[in-house]
Amino acid sequence: MNSELIDIREAIEHKLDELLPKESLIAQKLVDAMRYATLTGGKRIRPMLLCASCTGFGGTLEQALVPACAIELIHTYSLIHDDLPSMDNDDLRHGKPATHIAFGEPIAILTGDALQALAFDLLAGPHTEIPGSARIESIRLLSQGAGWNGMVGGQLLDLQSENQTLTLEQLRRLHEAKTGALITAAIQIGVAIAGTAEKKTIRTIDTFARKIGLAFQIVDDILDESESTTVLGKPANSDTELNKSTFPKLLGIQPSKKFAEQLVEEAVQLLAAENLKNSLLVDLAKICVQRRY
Amino acid sequence: MNSELIDIREAIEHKLDELLPKESLIAQKLVDAMRYATLTGGKRIRPMLLCASCTGFGGTLEQALVPACAIELIHTYSLIHDDLPSMDNDDLRHGKPATHIAFGEPIAILTGDALQALAFDLLAGPHTEIPGSARIESIRLLSQGAGWNGMVGGQLLDLQSENQTLTLEQLRRLHEAKTGALITAAIQIGVAIAGTAEKKTIRTIDTFARKIGLAFQIVDDILDESESTTVLGKPANSDTELNKSTFPKLLGIQPSKKFAEQLVEEAVQLLAAENLKNSLLVDLAKICVQRRY
Repeated sequence: MNSELIDIREAIEHKLDELLPKESLIAQKLVDAMRYATLTGGKRIRPMLLCASCTGFGGTLEQALVPACAIELIHTYSLIHDDLPSMDNDDLRHGKPATHIAFGEPIAILTGDALQALAFDLLAGPHTEIPGSARIESIRLLSQGAGWNGMVGGQLLDLQSENQTLTLEQLRRLHEAKTGALITAAIQIGVAIAGTAEKKTIRTIDTFARKIGLAFQIVDDILDESESTTVLGKPANSDTELNKSTFPKLLGIQPSKKFAEQLVEEAVQLLAAENLKNSLLVDLAKICVQRRY
Repeated sequence: MNSELIDIREAIEHKLDELLPKESLIAQKLVDAMRYATLTGGKRIRPMLLCASCTGFGGTLEQALVPACAIELIHTYSLIHDDLPSMDNDDLRHGKPATHIAFGEPIAILTGDALQALAFDLLAGPHTEIPGSARIESIRLLSQGAGWNGMVGGQLLDLQSENQTLTLEQLRRLHEAKTGALITAAIQIGVAIAGTAEKKTIRTIDTFARKIGLAFQIVDDILDESESTTVLGKPANSDTELNKSTFPKLLGIQPSKKFAEQLVEEAVQLLAAENLKNSLLVDLAKICVQRRY
């Protein structure tokens, strides 16, 4: 990862620490669990994508940071709820006990709920130097990416597909909702905050984002199958245990890798025609398939 | 209830039905569960309070309806999650099987998550004839009322207070967060949308809202102890079973009734000095203590 992206990730970590509440007069455990779940690891891919698309289209990192944290809070809450015993029942996350293991199931449920509310609070709050119309658009993009027709819908589809063999087309739709919708929202919000892109460009960026989102999830599935629990920081081979359909299972590992690389190549080609101010989006797109964990 | 309030409740029911998704290409069960949880009963007190405070300060019912539905979705999601086995473990809600009984636990968790996202989508979406600044203020009020320092924080405090005897002051703080924060947000959002109230009036309304919210919860606790499961539509005596502190337990039923009536009387007195365009808020305040279920 180049030094500019490392600096951005550092800035995101600092901002998350600053924005998450530290003390509560009514429920200190909740605040502790919100910080535990959010601040103990995570690749920060979604907030980095948001920052990269914002600065790539002429916005500032300062404008992007709070919305970037908002999208990471949504991602974090989804992991907490996905890990619950009645969902994927995963005990390990980012190499540490999952939130429901560390704090108990009721607090884990409420922590997810509180993180989702806080994400919208951040976008509506006084933290950001963003025009009102772009803020409302960001809230709309985030709520739709996270909601019934996006991430949450995809998670349900994922649960329902356990012990079933999906077609490639069904699996693609699952990934586009479960992982793709929030990654797409991250990139779209960055563009909306920068506020300079024309409609045609926004459409191109949407296609770019969808390709990246799918590639990201395919690589995730490959890693689940090929890496150890220690490297992943979460239980390896969980897809096999839950008997889930994945691209490596349907296509094989090598063809899946190739498909992910091809998606990223297509995505990068799409950007070539746009007047990007920096190449961070391209760098991040490549990282999505090159990452080892 | 007077006919104007009945008309408003009817309008809220229609708008909820209109705004909730009916079909999904990816997760039809999720959409079904969202409709089941939201459209099968509920007193609609919070959305009615929002509509009454909006029209009382010169806004229109048309402006208030979508935000009113948003607050009802937040309330509904909180009931779904509160009823879960690891939380209050209640099987019955509004006289019907709770969402996790009707659809299973994973879908119930995701349904709550999706309803929360949809609430913010409604406030950010194109449905409403509300100026941008009032929309952002509404999103801020809703996210804070629903979040770690409001409803969700109060729910955790409630769980932690099982098998403990709280002082009246601790119990008041619990209720102010768990129930009061969202009721207060409803009234505040109505005022924000109308957009006519001065700072002094907004402060008065906040005090009014807090008193109403506390009175509402005290009456809820009295009903839990004194009414049957059939009348309540949810398991009666659940507070005793979970060994929770309540006002009727700490003060006795009659003194609790008197306290709730006194709170409403004080609240109504506060409104007398404000230049309200109608008396619906006063009517609703009285309904909060007179209701039988």
